[in-house]
Amino acid sequence: MNNTRKIENGSITSVPGFRASGVTAGFKRSGAPDFAMIVADSPCNCAGVFTSCRFAAAPVVYDRELISANGKLQAAIINSGIANACTGARGMDAAKRSSELAGAALGIDPKLVAVSSTGRIGTQLPLDLIERGIELAVKTLDDPDGGNAAARAIMTTDTVPKATALELELQGRKVTIGAMTKGAGMIDPKLVGLHATMLCYVATDAGISSSLLQEMLEKNAEDSFNRITVDGDMSTNDTVIAMANGKSGAVIEKDTKDAEAFQAALLEVMQNLARRMVGDGEGSTKLVTIEVVNAPTEKDAKIATEAVANSLLCKTAWFGNDPNWGRVVAALGYSGAEFDPDKCDVFFGEIPVVLQGGDAGTPEEALLDTVRQPEFTIRCDLHSGSCSYWMWSSDISYEYVKINADYHT
Amino acid sequence: MNNTRKIENGSITSVPGFRASGVTAGFKRSGAPDFAMIVADSPCNCAGVFTSCRFAAAPVVYDRELISANGKLQAAIINSGIANACTGARGMDAAKRSSELAGAALGIDPKLVAVSSTGRIGTQLPLDLIERGIELAVKTLDDPDGGNAAARAIMTTDTVPKATALELELQGRKVTIGAMTKGAGMIDPKLVGLHATMLCYVATDAGISSSLLQEMLEKNAEDSFNRITVDGDMSTNDTVIAMANGKSGAVIEKDTKDAEAFQAALLEVMQNLARRMVGDGEGSTKLVTIEVVNAPTEKDAKIATEAVANSLLCKTAWFGNDPNWGRVVAALGYSGAEFDPDKCDVFFGEIPVVLQGGDAGTPEEALLDTVRQPEFTIRCDLHSGSCSYWMWSSDISYEYVKINADYHT
Repeated sequence: MNNTRKIENGSITSVPGFRASGVTAGFKRSGAPDFAMIVADSPCNCAGVFTSCRFAAAPVVYDRELISANGKLQAAIINSGIANACTGARGMDAAKRSSELAGAALGIDPKLVAVSSTGRIGTQLPLDLIERGIELAVKTLDDPDGGNAAARAIMTTDTVPKATALELELQGRKVTIGAMTKGAGMIDPKLVGLHATMLCYVATDAGISSSLLQEMLEKNAEDSFNRITVDGDMSTNDTVIAMANGKSGAVIEKDTKDAEAFQAALLEVMQNLARRMVGDGEGSTKLVTIEVVNAPTEKDAKIATEAVANSLLCKTAWFGNDPNWGRVVAALGYSGAEFDPDKCDVFFGEIPVVLQGGDAGTPEEALLDTVRQPEFTIRCDLHSGSCSYWMWSSDISYEYVKINADYHT
Repeated sequence: MNNTRKIENGSITSVPGFRASGVTAGFKRSGAPDFAMIVADSPCNCAGVFTSCRFAAAPVVYDRELISANGKLQAAIINSGIANACTGARGMDAAKRSSELAGAALGIDPKLVAVSSTGRIGTQLPLDLIERGIELAVKTLDDPDGGNAAARAIMTTDTVPKATALELELQGRKVTIGAMTKGAGMIDPKLVGLHATMLCYVATDAGISSSLLQEMLEKNAEDSFNRITVDGDMSTNDTVIAMANGKSGAVIEKDTKDAEAFQAALLEVMQNLARRMVGDGEGSTKLVTIEVVNAPTEKDAKIATEAVANSLLCKTAWFGNDPNWGRVVAALGYSGAEFDPDKCDVFFGEIPVVLQGGDAGTPEEALLDTVRQPEFTIRCDLHSGSCSYWMWSSDISYEYVKINADYHT
């Protein structure tokens, strides 16, 4: 167990030295908040992982360069409604110009300002709205609940804002990690390592070098955001950015017990948000954990897990409260993973449904209690080695189709 | 152009020397026809391609061995409603016993009888129903429209039966090819080479060796059934079996003009059926052809095509008449294909939507006529080489979710 304490109603602004705000700039026709700002009192060490999609959006290209060139960030602005993806040189200019506008408004070097966008692909970013967003956001930066306002402003098809924060003690000092994320569809992040239209910002007052933070962020992304799938589609805009201002006085050095504790706490924050993204997946009614154990290699475990987690037939069966394990074994079978089907067992929760590749004989009624739960686990034991993997998936409902057939309107 | 003539209302029984029937044996609760039989007057040369799913159903394992050991078939029985997959040794026995029962009823060697099953995975095959099916089917074998009755009896979630036949002239003789298929979901065949819960039976009166027929069937499966996707799920039961009785008198030798003409005609039959499977895809309202051209390698072209063809976000957008090209480029981008996004063009029908990686500026209204068509093509020009690939895909609708959330009831 991590020695962490969750902060009630926590967010990025639970972290000393960070302010944030969320306002309506006019990117969304609905009039809902659509522009967020995060500002640290001083330049922070930082790290970022981004989509591996070849069509990376302009802000992704911009931030990636910024972070690798400077290793410092002091602020971020995020708009929702327009992704600034596939917008060519004009889109790149808009990303750069946005950071300049924010830098000027905050009186800081624009090279310390990250920019993120999420929303419809292919539309140019209206700079007048960015300007209005900055103006309004700066005015409300002193809102004590700004972190939650920011979390609300970055939502697209999300139904609830997703923010969290926790504390832990390191070197006799209180260290805080706060974060927010958005993302409900186009979720199958493969960050580099990442993958979803997910945006996640993490703030901490730990003292940690950019390179160590980068290392932890990449490793933890593999065990959080890269373990979730809603629709198997990866986005052009996936971004996870972390900023550390060192204000707590605790200093995290590589290969120490403190580093281990801090990384575990960071993972707790990232998994909390990843899990809530799946729970809030577009039209989703269930969170299903897929576990594949005793595969011959980690790759076999992973591709078998991914096949089940992304199977449209499995996902619609879950929506229908159908304990249809045939679709699970079909997915394992076509995944490409090496294993002996005659040894394979499958469990819904603790209940065996397949033993040695065949029907375990469990009556369907006995499984209904499990598949009707809002959360359950499907465990596949391949009995063909010792490697394992897991993912969080969601079901696919009418509502998913509705949201995605109508999103453009 | 192939020198072929389509036969009106054609089916397997359009081919001289083949009889067929379709009856209700009781596998389906609905009372719809669910058992089909195909019988040739004499033993036929034959070929088969099957699912590459590791959990291959008992009848797939059985037929694969039968065809590779004997190279001869005279009959086939097919039941719909129960897949006889994941049924262990008992399922294998049931497959063998089914062929023995059919052989006895027809007075032929059981080793000449292929067996196929489609339907729910994990349920044992009731041999009493097989017995009843055989008894009823044998009685109606002289129905002149038996081929269409058989095509109807193998349907599961299909809404229409799918049979076809054509004639061509070879060596001054009339050669006929007739075929039937089923499959509307679990469609993403990767036959070995195949992949879908699709079953396809082809009959011809051409004279052709089993090995040449096998070669043509494999090659043609790559260009027909392996080019379609409904839900990206591959089945445990996918089967394509061809039988040739030689009755036309025309003899097809390898590497001749006649072989070329016959293979083209066979492809015409297989593509006709593959296309209709997508058109009848579960809940499908649209058939969308995805073309990727000018990719650096065939593999790049293929994975880029597959990513778009299987993207849930693209498929729901098509359902919603949404010319959302952002989802197309996102899929190309995450496909793993090598290409320069700044060179990429995308066309909906003939209309450019993306030019050099950015918005082509086409107003959405101009695209609506295209995306509202029941069939249209999305062409992606990567300008990064000279390789190309194409696939047929369908949209994903509310009805798809309904069918698959409720299929078990």
